[in-house]
Amino acid sequence: MQVNRPFILIVNDDGVSAPGLQFLSATLKQIADILVIAPEKEQSGKSHAINVDQKIKVKKLKELDGYIEYSCSGTPADCVKIAMHELVVKKPDLCISGINHGANFSISTLYSGTVHAALEGTIQSVPSIAISHQNYSKDIDFSCFKNFIKNIATHILNVGLKNGVTLNINIPDIPFSKIKGIKVCHQGDGNWVEEYEKKEQGFYWLTGDFVSFDTSKSSDIWAINNNYITIVPVKLDMTDYDYLKDLKDLNIDV
Amino acid sequence: MQVNRPFILIVNDDGVSAPGLQFLSATLKQIADILVIAPEKEQSGKSHAINVDQKIKVKKLKELDGYIEYSCSGTPADCVKIAMHELVVKKPDLCISGINHGANFSISTLYSGTVHAALEGTIQSVPSIAISHQNYSKDIDFSCFKNFIKNIATHILNVGLKNGVTLNINIPDIPFSKIKGIKVCHQGDGNWVEEYEKKEQGFYWLTGDFVSFDTSKSSDIWAINNNYITIVPVKLDMTDYDYLKDLKDLNIDV
Repeated sequence: MQVNRPFILIVNDDGVSAPGLQFLSATLKQIADILVIAPEKEQSGKSHAINVDQKIKVKKLKELDGYIEYSCSGTPADCVKIAMHELVVKKPDLCISGINHGANFSISTLYSGTVHAALEGTIQSVPSIAISHQNYSKDIDFSCFKNFIKNIATHILNVGLKNGVTLNINIPDIPFSKIKGIKVCHQGDGNWVEEYEKKEQGFYWLTGDFVSFDTSKSSDIWAINNNYITIVPVKLDMTDYDYLKDLKDLNIDV
Repeated sequence: MQVNRPFILIVNDDGVSAPGLQFLSATLKQIADILVIAPEKEQSGKSHAINVDQKIKVKKLKELDGYIEYSCSGTPADCVKIAMHELVVKKPDLCISGINHGANFSISTLYSGTVHAALEGTIQSVPSIAISHQNYSKDIDFSCFKNFIKNIATHILNVGLKNGVTLNINIPDIPFSKIKGIKVCHQGDGNWVEEYEKKEQGFYWLTGDFVSFDTSKSSDIWAINNNYITIVPVKLDMTDYDYLKDLKDLNIDV
């Protein structure tokens, strides 16, 4: 570990061998010391799940100058917790989760292991961001995003983030030359129209397609569909403060 | 199923045999038709995790007039999705998750399978609430909460809830006579001071104690510690709108 170099914690939910994670760590080790910790196996849709009082296995896979990589049998949030409590030698300057293979905007923010690994970084007081790409393919070439990755990391290393907030970043699945820029947005109102396949009696397999209910041009749904990289500030405090005021006079007998 | 009786979906994360769930369904079947679906095994700390494209087993355990009970091999959120898509004969008027054995206030809102089962009900457009009791014991006597449970359910059946918002309710672990009433609060600022036990080389077990950083008397932490039942309106939209304004001029090259 070099003096004065930033120190970045990298995590994901697709697993330690995912190309998105490997591209992210290879790009960022040019500007920072890196600790990678990622699930042994894919942990998509694991949200903020953690294992409490259950055995979690951690295995060191690589150790080079300024670069160390672990696999973990737990969830994405477990990876961040174990790194922070047991593996880092100093507090990371930044935590980045991704690059996820598949988008995580709108309601998927709640289901995403990628976003919640970054939110766990925020809980641990580390400025944290999640980065997802709209394409699910493991063969995608991320190399055109090298500058963007370095620029966003450098920006946050320089200026920091508000306490209690993670940036949720999504990259549209279009040729790089068509990307219009970045847009800071709100989490759009959309949902999954789901269906269960029943291949055997008593067993169900979930599938679904995303639909938008949001007509606003300030949502992440509009922005990604209109060729922008989207950035949504996502906060740990889930309180609806407006509705809280309406409920203040709630009169229910105990 | 009786005409004109309300229809309530009941779920939890402690598992189908948990006393909190069984008390809740026994209490509410006095006023409504009930469908219970709950995990086969305890699923605490599973947050909003779902199984996508993976086999989920559902088993009918009981069927009586106006009462039906299923176990599910999936997560709490899976339970709600499968019930809504495959098991209900009409849309529930209310979804209640709980009663959880253990509190789910402050930052635990993010980790809790109980809260996120209710949030999944909200995603499915059903007015939804989560109820947790601060005591972890499976031997606790909930009978003193019969009126409160019926009152809160009846209130929401009558007036509904704002779209996109779940009520997260926590009951303090004190004698019933000491409960001062209910308080509508915001999610308090607190965290877990965590530790990993290392009973074997390369393996970790998470444990932790909750600490509060919140000095406000309007937080759920203050209210539960001061003998109130707490109600926090929790929303699906996690955007930090204040910070969004600050970030609008973010100038990062792609």
